[in-house]
Amino acid sequence: MRNAWYVGAWNHEVGRARLMRRLLLNEPVVFYRKDDGKPVALEDRCAHRHAKLSEGKIRGDDLECPYHGLTYAPSGECIRVPGQSTVPPGCGVRSYPLVERGPWIWIWMGDPALADPAKIPNLFWLEDPNWRNKGELLHLEANYVLLIENLLDLSHLSFVHPTTLGTSAIAETPMRHDRTDKSVTVTRWIMDNTPPPFFQKAGGFAPTDKVDRWQIITWEAPSTVYLDVGAAKAGTGAREGNRSQGFQMRNTNAITPETDKTTHYFWTQAHDFLVTDPTVTDLLFNQVHTAFLEDLAIVKAQQVNIDLDPSVRRYDINHDGGGIAMKRMLDKMIADDNGPGGRSMRSAAE
Amino acid sequence: MRNAWYVGAWNHEVGRARLMRRLLLNEPVVFYRKDDGKPVALEDRCAHRHAKLSEGKIRGDDLECPYHGLTYAPSGECIRVPGQSTVPPGCGVRSYPLVERGPWIWIWMGDPALADPAKIPNLFWLEDPNWRNKGELLHLEANYVLLIENLLDLSHLSFVHPTTLGTSAIAETPMRHDRTDKSVTVTRWIMDNTPPPFFQKAGGFAPTDKVDRWQIITWEAPSTVYLDVGAAKAGTGAREGNRSQGFQMRNTNAITPETDKTTHYFWTQAHDFLVTDPTVTDLLFNQVHTAFLEDLAIVKAQQVNIDLDPSVRRYDINHDGGGIAMKRMLDKMIADDNGPGGRSMRSAAE
Amino acid sequence: MRNAWYVGAWNHEVGRARLMRRLLLNEPVVFYRKDDGKPVALEDRCAHRHAKLSEGKIRGDDLECPYHGLTYAPSGECIRVPGQSTVPPGCGVRSYPLVERGPWIWIWMGDPALADPAKIPNLFWLEDPNWRNKGELLHLEANYVLLIENLLDLSHLSFVHPTTLGTSAIAETPMRHDRTDKSVTVTRWIMDNTPPPFFQKAGGFAPTDKVDRWQIITWEAPSTVYLDVGAAKAGTGAREGNRSQGFQMRNTNAITPETDKTTHYFWTQAHDFLVTDPTVTDLLFNQVHTAFLEDLAIVKAQQVNIDLDPSVRRYDINHDGGGIAMKRMLDKMIADDNGPGGRSMRSAAE
Repeated sequence: MRNAWYVGAWNHEVGRARLMRRLLLNEPVVFYRKDDGKPVALEDRCAHRHAKLSEGKIRGDDLECPYHGLTYAPSGECIRVPGQSTVPPGCGVRSYPLVERGPWIWIWMGDPALADPAKIPNLFWLEDPNWRNKGELLHLEANYVLLIENLLDLSHLSFVHPTTLGTSAIAETPMRHDRTDKSVTVTRWIMDNTPPPFFQKAGGFAPTDKVDRWQIITWEAPSTVYLDVGAAKAGTGAREGNRSQGFQMRNTNAITPETDKTTHYFWTQAHDFLVTDPTVTDLLFNQVHTAFLEDLAIVKAQQVNIDLDPSVRRYDINHDGGGIAMKRMLDKMIADDNGPGGRSMRSAAE
Repeated sequence: MRNAWYVGAWNHEVGRARLMRRLLLNEPVVFYRKDDGKPVALEDRCAHRHAKLSEGKIRGDDLECPYHGLTYAPSGECIRVPGQSTVPPGCGVRSYPLVERGPWIWIWMGDPALADPAKIPNLFWLEDPNWRNKGELLHLEANYVLLIENLLDLSHLSFVHPTTLGTSAIAETPMRHDRTDKSVTVTRWIMDNTPPPFFQKAGGFAPTDKVDRWQIITWEAPSTVYLDVGAAKAGTGAREGNRSQGFQMRNTNAITPETDKTTHYFWTQAHDFLVTDPTVTDLLFNQVHTAFLEDLAIVKAQQVNIDLDPSVRRYDINHDGGGIAMKRMLDKMIADDNGPGGRSMRSAAE
Repeated sequence: MRNAWYVGAWNHEVGRARLMRRLLLNEPVVFYRKDDGKPVALEDRCAHRHAKLSEGKIRGDDLECPYHGLTYAPSGECIRVPGQSTVPPGCGVRSYPLVERGPWIWIWMGDPALADPAKIPNLFWLEDPNWRNKGELLHLEANYVLLIENLLDLSHLSFVHPTTLGTSAIAETPMRHDRTDKSVTVTRWIMDNTPPPFFQKAGGFAPTDKVDRWQIITWEAPSTVYLDVGAAKAGTGAREGNRSQGFQMRNTNAITPETDKTTHYFWTQAHDFLVTDPTVTDLLFNQVHTAFLEDLAIVKAQQVNIDLDPSVRRYDINHDGGGIAMKRMLDKMIADDNGPGGRSMRSAAE
């Protein structure tokens, strides 16, 4: 699905002094910043002989090819060909619309005319000073949809992360899912339950305390997933909206396809408590980091088995409701995106 | 060819405390043992989302998926789905019939209803206390048929193993081959000949002695090859059946396809002389081990050349009689196996 | 294009005591020398079971297969099959016509009947005692045509080799190209210009001197490129033919396809000045060596981008005149070569 916003980079990855190549949706992209600090993303493939522009040089705000010196403006237009006074008509590379918001730089991989910043998911907690977050970029050797499925069914916590995030209560608790035209939300409340070790640390509960615990997971098409996760002392009304006796976090995931079978996994863990204590932020980061490495191992193994025989049937279970709704919506969006409109978009851009 | 017995593992490789994944005929298989010691082999791919069961946990005699906790009985049937009281109809993984015999665990990769233990090759010397054997598992980066061809024409000993097993006499001596409906036997007698260095050590012959030497190689479809090899003092009637003045060995090979271009090579060297002296067993093992590494290098190089251009013609020579008979029989069996019956087998199992 | 001469090896790579395997145009070739020193190149794939002859043994002037001992004469004919008195009719491997000339052994990959040594490019400076040369074999992970294009447009010197060979003057100077029925020549004269650092060293010019500089690049189909490069003191008539006030070199490149996406790059740098001083030869070699590693990095990156999407359009610029003429001629030659005549050639050879 090309006509969509994806996270392309952390803001600190893109600088004026360096060119960063990254493969996104099978396309080579080079990131850099202009003199005024605005980020630029161009197709990392010179229109002349397809050399990597990311191995070239920044000239002012423009980018010079390392091979024969063709120079491109941030618009993607070729503005100079050494040895001749004119530029071949139409010569240029794709320039991708970018929006820098919070820690991330969002990129629009489709028709630039359709790139509406209002379509970027609202992740206010990544910009709000009352929250803090810390994250990283992981690389996954599997298709990105497998990872979205992973996040939409947290019943896996009990099995994949038994010593960190999981308790057997999760898998045994039913969940509901709701959908809009561009998102799926999966909600699970675990009432009057023992907090797992990680929650005890984060929320200051005693092992003998009981908590009401929530997991409200939202997928926004095509590939943003945020988990509103937290717990409050049992019976203090959290389910009805009063979260004052608990803590909450937003595990925020931007899952960008690199190729059909590899994925850039941007994630960050946000929290709205003890925001002035960086050791809390680090603690949360470290816990999730450990858990996500466990997830990546599982998901990579899935891809290995799928590659052995993609025709093998998948049996669905009750917990898959959210994932199935997501996949149906996504498949339809991809079909629409790759239809005549999608194709003509690419032709028009060249 | 799926409807056949293959060696899937050494008995010591499969234990109660560990799960072992192995790819057999392009299918992922996980081995473990039940509480009573009986081995189990299941499809190593959860029916739900295709995670590797081999990364999961043994629960009693059952196997729990590492991802969402679906649990499978040794029959392959899914008996538990966390979070729901029933299991989706038909949900399960393949369970492969196994027979543990001597050092090896045999596995039936096809329709379980056809798995008749009587079809397992009779390799009595691997279970008879009057024999000893020692072997190993090697990995070959080539199609398994190339290795069967290697074993059916020992004229290569003179060239590939000149310093260990070979003498020029082998290639110069004609052989005959006979066939049944499921096997090919190649017989070569080298009469009144000088024993090679390895035979001198094993049989206690002097370099100046003359011996009558035999090589009786049997291939049983699809992939077992055993070599009845030995020598007796010349003129003592070995060819007529009296082997008392000599020594005999059984080089036993189970050649199991891993993928189309890689192979699990199980082999063991058995002998019926000096069975109480482990140094003799070790000596035989070491000699064959060295020779087989030489074979694997040659066969791997064959595969490299074949991959460069699979259409290049192969010229046959006289020594190829056994190999050609084997290949013709095997090709026919594979064609029969992949016919409507073979296909419907797989559908039935799912 | 098979019906053509390619450089297959350096003369010092091929010896009597060793067998050298090399993949050329996707075909496995083994090189060795006969007792009289003449080089031999045979198909490195036994006609019997496709083992590598390069792992076998030289027997007189013949080559014995490492697997079952089939023996081949330098003509490619199989002359011995152990264990039988006759050889299967037609059994043999391809024998490739070779011509040893100067430092290189040329090989004809097509129909031997068409192998005319007169078609080998005339590179007299590699044999003339008034010249010296030093070179090497590099390996390129890209299609060979990309490298020919690189050499036919030296405007890249200004960008790829700014600290060694390049000055900005090159890219800004127009060039002309001329063609025959089997070659393209690109000529660029840079008059009254500052010599780049490398030229100052080689020609003994002061940084303040002005020179007339020439680049006369000739591609001979399919894959030889030589650069007549030099400079003379400005205004001394070099363009009209008097090179006595300057220095000249011949950068000589033989670019042999290994596979569709890898290339053997044979090159050597010749010069006709200070030929008795090996440090000059070494200096020239080292400078070009450094520059060529820069080229290989660029060209390999091109191939990466091309593989990502081979359908992306290439825009041509004025400097591409020579490269376009080359590509058009080469494409036509390949089409002719792969027509009925080319195919029947291969059938005839087997």
